[in-house]
Amino acid sequence: MLYVKCDQIYFPNQIIKHGYLEVENGKCGRVVDDVPLNAEVVDYTGSIIIPGFIDQHIHGWGTGSFGSDKSIASIKEMKKNLPYEGVTSFLATSGAEPIEELIEGIRNVSWLVKNQKDDGATVLGVHLEGPFINKEFKGMQREECCINPNMAIMDQLLKAQSSPGIIKLMTMAPELDGAKEMIIKCHENGIQINIGHSGATFECIRDLKEYGLGGVTHMFSGMSGFHHRELGVAGSAMYFDDLNCEFAKQTGNTVKQEAFAIVWKLKNKDKICMSTDCGGIAQTNKERYHYIRKETFIPDGDYLIIRKDDGTETRIDKHNYAEVRDLELSYIKSIRNMIENVHPSIHEVVKVTAENPAKYINVYDRKGSLEEGKDADFLVIDKDFNIKVTYCMGKPYVYEVDYV
Amino acid sequence: MLYVKCDQIYFPNQIIKHGYLEVENGKCGRVVDDVPLNAEVVDYTGSIIIPGFIDQHIHGWGTGSFGSDKSIASIKEMKKNLPYEGVTSFLATSGAEPIEELIEGIRNVSWLVKNQKDDGATVLGVHLEGPFINKEFKGMQREECCINPNMAIMDQLLKAQSSPGIIKLMTMAPELDGAKEMIIKCHENGIQINIGHSGATFECIRDLKEYGLGGVTHMFSGMSGFHHRELGVAGSAMYFDDLNCEFAKQTGNTVKQEAFAIVWKLKNKDKICMSTDCGGIAQTNKERYHYIRKETFIPDGDYLIIRKDDGTETRIDKHNYAEVRDLELSYIKSIRNMIENVHPSIHEVVKVTAENPAKYINVYDRKGSLEEGKDADFLVIDKDFNIKVTYCMGKPYVYEVDYV
Repeated sequence: MLYVKCDQIYFPNQIIKHGYLEVENGKCGRVVDDVPLNAEVVDYTGSIIIPGFIDQHIHGWGTGSFGSDKSIASIKEMKKNLPYEGVTSFLATSGAEPIEELIEGIRNVSWLVKNQKDDGATVLGVHLEGPFINKEFKGMQREECCINPNMAIMDQLLKAQSSPGIIKLMTMAPELDGAKEMIIKCHENGIQINIGHSGATFECIRDLKEYGLGGVTHMFSGMSGFHHRELGVAGSAMYFDDLNCEFAKQTGNTVKQEAFAIVWKLKNKDKICMSTDCGGIAQTNKERYHYIRKETFIPDGDYLIIRKDDGTETRIDKHNYAEVRDLELSYIKSIRNMIENVHPSIHEVVKVTAENPAKYINVYDRKGSLEEGKDADFLVIDKDFNIKVTYCMGKPYVYEVDYV
Repeated sequence: MLYVKCDQIYFPNQIIKHGYLEVENGKCGRVVDDVPLNAEVVDYTGSIIIPGFIDQHIHGWGTGSFGSDKSIASIKEMKKNLPYEGVTSFLATSGAEPIEELIEGIRNVSWLVKNQKDDGATVLGVHLEGPFINKEFKGMQREECCINPNMAIMDQLLKAQSSPGIIKLMTMAPELDGAKEMIIKCHENGIQINIGHSGATFECIRDLKEYGLGGVTHMFSGMSGFHHRELGVAGSAMYFDDLNCEFAKQTGNTVKQEAFAIVWKLKNKDKICMSTDCGGIAQTNKERYHYIRKETFIPDGDYLIIRKDDGTETRIDKHNYAEVRDLELSYIKSIRNMIENVHPSIHEVVKVTAENPAKYINVYDRKGSLEEGKDADFLVIDKDFNIKVTYCMGKPYVYEVDYV
């Protein structure tokens, strides 16, 4: 038994002050006021404990990319490095990709879900961001892989799971032919549905919502925008109280901070989930232009060449986390931006980073809060949201000596 | 002294039940529990008393149109018939029109403000919806009359007032050259500023707001729309808590009810003003196509020909209120639509129809609530918002025998 001492521990309905959180066999125990003689204590006096972040939308991170490489090794790289960014569990997220690649990905995630050890963040399952999405709103997705809902293909994807519940979330466009049947089928199989890469009208969403449209993927991006005579996907997500808004990382580039602030004010805080939508961009297997960084990423064996618009190039080791880490905005940095923009309470941060996604993708029985018996996934932070240490299933992860 | 008996009287911070509202010399007195022997009592037991509606944006109504005819007679027609729709005071509203016509309108409103008798709704002053608006967002406005802010012209308009304070509100586009100076000048002259017929960016509004941008004209219409990377006028009005949103009548045609509902949820109820933006369309002096009704309105002397798209025509007497009354949606009907859509409390209805506009256009010292000493402008309504009688300056107006 380990006793974790800190100033405050955040639970969904209370904050416990100056206690010791019991941790045993990767699970949270009680919070106690005192510890037995000779107990193993780690002392984080001055710090706060909150549940670890859950990223329901992440294609890749740092030295691993499920988006570019569906191998077990690639997913393991994501697991290994995500704790340093505050992420203690995640959904390996695909795009619209060839069906055989999706099947391979689902199989490998299935294997990892069953066989994960003390090796970083928990991979909870798969988020299929496609293939049943609308070409016209494809964004960075592969157009040739955007297809109409197809039951035979869905059956193949479902069968690729070693057991039900590996596919936890699917992004789809409800305006496509066959969407209603697909929504019903997904719900029968315990799959949550996000509207995304979609040009759906308000009426379409209103009519299909009752069959199981839970929310939207990367709010505002890749969807029909709000107009006062046709609300589109964005306006529907703003209008319907029960639709969840997933936000991708808070750079202020893809979605202005003020637009985020409007939704923050409008929605119940139970209906917002933060995510990163990171790609593990260093692992790209083809040349890609990053329109926000204004740089071209060129794969070169074990290296990545980054060419700026002015022609200057740098070359980095794509397997070296220290070199690739800052190519994308991490979960914790995104949250710090959010904190600066909308000044949430810590409880609100906990909701949108842990509690809500855990409920949304149906893992709240073991993730998303620190009640007795749940997984010991938590962050030890200071008041400025610097992460001192991340615990995944009771095991601590610290990135070098610096705060993250 | 008249004693008005009813079940409930709405004051800004309280509801008085089962009292008698004293009315004398056109002013509200106290609310008393009992009346003297032989007192003159009107008994509206079963009814509710709320302040009369204030329409800050109305070009014309029924048999009168300041928009089409700036004469005193035309404004008097508006005054005469507006009480039947619940409106007890209003701003005669111009569009972007030739300067000499605006001057004539300001002069005639000046005269009426000083000389109004017991002749219906109070004309409070002028709302200039132009001329300093953006051609690109002209909507139904006359393009040739949309001009950049011009101090010499503004001086002419100010001088046309018989005394300061006749022009109470001006709609302008803050992105036009010279806007900042115009905003400052207007505020020095006690004129509230609405952003409208404008393509202003978020940054433009953010930077000029402190000089005196109070809110927006007909929210969503005639303005740059909301986008998550460029919030435009609509997004700025949604984002900035202190910008007032004026909504034109709630038909659901120009602004979907769900779009209204989003703003209703987002904004503090102190920052919404309802209005009609009605035109007194029967008085049009040139052929006009009404794109919502899908009818062409053709003036023909004392008559108006209404030609449907299928060619069928009806001919009505444009001076007969009963015939022209239903050509546009009235204030009270608009409010009933709003009630159906967003289910406000009666207090909220009172805020957005009376209290807020009175404060916004700076007449709250005498209008917008029923405190002792203020003008006796009130509506006697039933619980379904049927108007039994409208009092303007203590004088009752009832339209025939039917409820409005």
